[in-house]
Amino acid sequence: MIIVLKPSTPPEQIQLFADKLCNDYEVKVNRWDGVHSTVLGLIGDTHTVDIEYIDAQDIVESVKRVQEPYKKANRKFHPENTVIKISDNVSIGDGSLQIMAGPCSVESEDQIVEIAKKVKNSGATLLRGGAFKPRTSPYAFQGLKSEGLDLLKLARKETGLPIVSEIMRTEHIDMFENVDVIQVGARNMQNFDLLKELGKTQKPILLKRGLSATIEEWLMSAEYIMAGGNDNVILCERGIRTYENYTRNTLDISAVPIVKKLSHLPVVVDPSHASGKSWLVEPLAMAAVAAGADGLIIEVHNDPPHALSDGAQSLTPEQFDKIAEKLVALKACLK
Amino acid sequence: MIIVLKPSTPPEQIQLFADKLCNDYEVKVNRWDGVHSTVLGLIGDTHTVDIEYIDAQDIVESVKRVQEPYKKANRKFHPENTVIKISDNVSIGDGSLQIMAGPCSVESEDQIVEIAKKVKNSGATLLRGGAFKPRTSPYAFQGLKSEGLDLLKLARKETGLPIVSEIMRTEHIDMFENVDVIQVGARNMQNFDLLKELGKTQKPILLKRGLSATIEEWLMSAEYIMAGGNDNVILCERGIRTYENYTRNTLDISAVPIVKKLSHLPVVVDPSHASGKSWLVEPLAMAAVAAGADGLIIEVHNDPPHALSDGAQSLTPEQFDKIAEKLVALKACLK
Amino acid sequence: MIIVLKPSTPPEQIQLFADKLCNDYEVKVNRWDGVHSTVLGLIGDTHTVDIEYIDAQDIVESVKRVQEPYKKANRKFHPENTVIKISDNVSIGDGSLQIMAGPCSVESEDQIVEIAKKVKNSGATLLRGGAFKPRTSPYAFQGLKSEGLDLLKLARKETGLPIVSEIMRTEHIDMFENVDVIQVGARNMQNFDLLKELGKTQKPILLKRGLSATIEEWLMSAEYIMAGGNDNVILCERGIRTYENYTRNTLDISAVPIVKKLSHLPVVVDPSHASGKSWLVEPLAMAAVAAGADGLIIEVHNDPPHALSDGAQSLTPEQFDKIAEKLVALKACLK
Amino acid sequence: MIIVLKPSTPPEQIQLFADKLCNDYEVKVNRWDGVHSTVLGLIGDTHTVDIEYIDAQDIVESVKRVQEPYKKANRKFHPENTVIKISDNVSIGDGSLQIMAGPCSVESEDQIVEIAKKVKNSGATLLRGGAFKPRTSPYAFQGLKSEGLDLLKLARKETGLPIVSEIMRTEHIDMFENVDVIQVGARNMQNFDLLKELGKTQKPILLKRGLSATIEEWLMSAEYIMAGGNDNVILCERGIRTYENYTRNTLDISAVPIVKKLSHLPVVVDPSHASGKSWLVEPLAMAAVAAGADGLIIEVHNDPPHALSDGAQSLTPEQFDKIAEKLVALKACLK
Repeated sequence: MIIVLKPSTPPEQIQLFADKLCNDYEVKVNRWDGVHSTVLGLIGDTHTVDIEYIDAQDIVESVKRVQEPYKKANRKFHPENTVIKISDNVSIGDGSLQIMAGPCSVESEDQIVEIAKKVKNSGATLLRGGAFKPRTSPYAFQGLKSEGLDLLKLARKETGLPIVSEIMRTEHIDMFENVDVIQVGARNMQNFDLLKELGKTQKPILLKRGLSATIEEWLMSAEYIMAGGNDNVILCERGIRTYENYTRNTLDISAVPIVKKLSHLPVVVDPSHASGKSWLVEPLAMAAVAAGADGLIIEVHNDPPHALSDGAQSLTPEQFDKIAEKLVALKACLK
Repeated sequence: MIIVLKPSTPPEQIQLFADKLCNDYEVKVNRWDGVHSTVLGLIGDTHTVDIEYIDAQDIVESVKRVQEPYKKANRKFHPENTVIKISDNVSIGDGSLQIMAGPCSVESEDQIVEIAKKVKNSGATLLRGGAFKPRTSPYAFQGLKSEGLDLLKLARKETGLPIVSEIMRTEHIDMFENVDVIQVGARNMQNFDLLKELGKTQKPILLKRGLSATIEEWLMSAEYIMAGGNDNVILCERGIRTYENYTRNTLDISAVPIVKKLSHLPVVVDPSHASGKSWLVEPLAMAAVAAGADGLIIEVHNDPPHALSDGAQSLTPEQFDKIAEKLVALKACLK
Repeated sequence: MIIVLKPSTPPEQIQLFADKLCNDYEVKVNRWDGVHSTVLGLIGDTHTVDIEYIDAQDIVESVKRVQEPYKKANRKFHPENTVIKISDNVSIGDGSLQIMAGPCSVESEDQIVEIAKKVKNSGATLLRGGAFKPRTSPYAFQGLKSEGLDLLKLARKETGLPIVSEIMRTEHIDMFENVDVIQVGARNMQNFDLLKELGKTQKPILLKRGLSATIEEWLMSAEYIMAGGNDNVILCERGIRTYENYTRNTLDISAVPIVKKLSHLPVVVDPSHASGKSWLVEPLAMAAVAAGADGLIIEVHNDPPHALSDGAQSLTPEQFDKIAEKLVALKACLK
Repeated sequence: MIIVLKPSTPPEQIQLFADKLCNDYEVKVNRWDGVHSTVLGLIGDTHTVDIEYIDAQDIVESVKRVQEPYKKANRKFHPENTVIKISDNVSIGDGSLQIMAGPCSVESEDQIVEIAKKVKNSGATLLRGGAFKPRTSPYAFQGLKSEGLDLLKLARKETGLPIVSEIMRTEHIDMFENVDVIQVGARNMQNFDLLKELGKTQKPILLKRGLSATIEEWLMSAEYIMAGGNDNVILCERGIRTYENYTRNTLDISAVPIVKKLSHLPVVVDPSHASGKSWLVEPLAMAAVAAGADGLIIEVHNDPPHALSDGAQSLTPEQFDKIAEKLVALKACLK
């Protein structure tokens, strides 16, 4: 950690501050004097140093971390890729491409079972489906709730596909016991109480990037889960908010290689939410695979115009079938 | 609601779609044919129309709302300002300027009582203080929790100032029964389950704008609370995320007059979080008052360098005293 | 064009306004009355209608275009892909992948000729190099200017590679007569006077997207060049400005398929400037090809640490060689 | 300047690099070794150090400036406010409030003279008016050009108000010889060739902030002008591009106090372009004055619905009159 002090700070104040840092934290303090400013460098384990405390000092002009603030999610301390086993056949992070597919919302037994069978045939390896839906409007369909989870389990029984579904509050964790991957939505990426509770389970967690979260904040949210003892975190890039409004969000494709460099956790891409338009799913999914993603999560609905949510970004099973074929071919070609 | 159809949609499909809209919703459908596209106009109560359903239709190129999607928060249906009574002496939204002041985190009885007394003397009318703290890092101080709330109540007893504190999960609502204003933080603005539960209470809710929430999304979150039956929502602009990184966030000063035009709810400004720098609090607070804000929420700490969180943006009581004087003078001059 | 009028506009004012629109432009006006607002729809050639004039009317609440504001760049009026012939062997937009490679700045004869030979061997089909450099600091190296152009021509003579270089002012157009592709940099994307003058030439123009330009604004800048009579515009996505600051810019990979849908012009991607980091060039270039880009423009320097500008994002010729091989293999696999 | 090296860089390479820095620049290099990384600190005049050169080194992980990269615009080296004398009666930066008002485009003698007289009566101290107009569409009105400048001079003769108008290309500098303040528009903020040429004059330059320029980039553009010998730069905040699209741009009110802290140059605010809506001009102008702006630039048109550009954000002279009165009263109250 590097601390730039304000010009003309009295030497005795600098000394006092440096001494205090050494006492409060397990660090050594180096100092050098520039023409206009003095700079202090902290050496040691700076994870525990509260950067806001430093920044609040009257004599401090700016602070810069040299080490990343996350530890368990950091590739520097865990060089090999984390591989998360989801079922007997499905692992993520091992170099394979896992495709999660299914409707935005679970709507009925017929719907979810039919979609599950079709996407499995096309090559999907996990079934996604929303039971609890975060909706911007209180007047919009909010999901089938626990009944939706039951229908997902039924579809799993029929097809063998492990299931992925979104959780919205800590009180529901028990209800998700039998769900294979628990999704934390973009709007809850910094719902720290939820993250802490999920850290006490051993469930694979699909952690979506917040609407305007930096990569560092996203990894810090992963750190929240891991700090509780649960290392099974799958990161999911789903587009960020920018000034461009042709698409609902802007897919940050660079996040894939960056996250793989900074962290050992697997990363998947959601081209459906990133664009909000079904015709963009194919090129964005192709780009994600070419950029090194470990998986994809794609919305598929048997009847998009009648989908109860997010229809505009859903593919039909037939469209998905063609895209999945291309994705598998691309992945094979990259090896 | 205006629906632009794709070029060369067959007339019979247009007819079918228009008929379906009339059946499904209480609307009439007008149609006109341009050179390249056909446009449908929906007349009636379009609040219940699911814009995503429309957008998902194969034949639809784009959709545009004419009416806002929020109803209870909408000034069109409620022209007079909402005035929220917080205590016998304190109301917000009635043309007065209410100043909420206090530390980011409650730290001890001495700390909170001392600050409360000082800010009251300087003209603050509410006491703010965090008991549950949302922190980006799992390794940072997370607040005194219920003990913090008890200390706030103690400070209220000593000074008479009503208290404002942030809630982080639905299970804590009972614990906040005796708190005068419950704050929903920026990171929870779209924690819809929390909003719904708060909608069942009658507590004044201070709803902070999300880090990258549009004004419409913010008002939709207010609508969530109001749809549950609680009309006591105070909006709080606290800076948005932009590319500019000199400040932690960028204060969107325009949000003040815009929200007052679109909605009847009171709006306050948080210059401390918007800037993250204590020397910017004064000019931003002055700007907020000049732009028409109903109140301010300002961080004050008796010892900012030793504050357990957000010290860099905290004022000392002495600094606050001078600023409060200027703010009161400015407000008087604007009348 | 759809015009939503303010609630309770008097009918006679609406009539007057509608009549005026019919007189001023070659359009017909349709009207329908909703519960809260009246809506006017303009039918005809609305390209010439000044949307700001409409928006300025007291009685107007909002305006929405149905047709795009660009005409010559619009795929609706020109369905086939534009193919731009740059030299006997090099065309762009015909389904092939064109790779432009070379240093950020031309520095010396030895440098540019050596790099040109190497990138040609690796598969590059055009040579890029800056002679006039837009630099944020007035104290930074600003390029070799006309001497740099001469050195580029020398390297072309040695290798046969057509050359690409950036122009910075209208007075230099004559100097670029013998340059094969003239680049307009991101900072000049809305230097309308420069665009107009380039529209009077028949040179292929590589039009970089502005730092925070929307896709529509970018296509409008292409329209400026085309309106002058020059249809040879190549669009170049080079990253946009967002809140994320791990990378210098955020590559908007979605722009590739979107621009190809909205326009018939070819589009290339600049992964070097989009990321600012050489280790990100490979995954971003791969993603660009998978998303359908017609070409790439990549910085290669024989000695990146001693490059006079933008060294951090430059590859060595050896690194470029490996990446070019992968890109060509990927392109072959996609066919 | 602080340079963080990559973990496990060999000591001899560090030594070589440090020696090279000392040779190449007038700096001393300090070094300290952390647990994971080594850090170098450069002491001396680092303005001339090319940060991109440093960043390009293989062994460098990141670089951070301690000193700002601008010198002439920097308050550290020029503590007193710069006061720019525009005419016998009008100076900017001396603590007064200067109001520039007038139409977006000059349209006719009658128009500009009438507006000039009215805004002068209301308290405006400069007349603004566009002769050359940067328009997004090539099909929109582009200004009266040199005739527009002549009409402005005529209005100056009638009223005594100094005039402000926008330049769009270097070849026009002679034409602007008799214009009192030359405006550089947001889209040309990084048209470095134009900035350099303006640096050779002694004209007051109104430098608008670019659509997505950081404060540092904006000050670097001021530095371009000043590096050429022209210290008469007036900064103009006119809103930045964000994800929020209710307004055309988002006024960054914090920029006012920040720029005044970092630089000695005067700063004015353009509430008309920042919002794009005439009803927002008043609250934003009030906020700007309260935040410490040295002036305002406001669009006023005698007939906004018939304005040839930007009518939606123009005030009528009557509206302007009321607002100017409030602004003057507010300024008086702040003293």
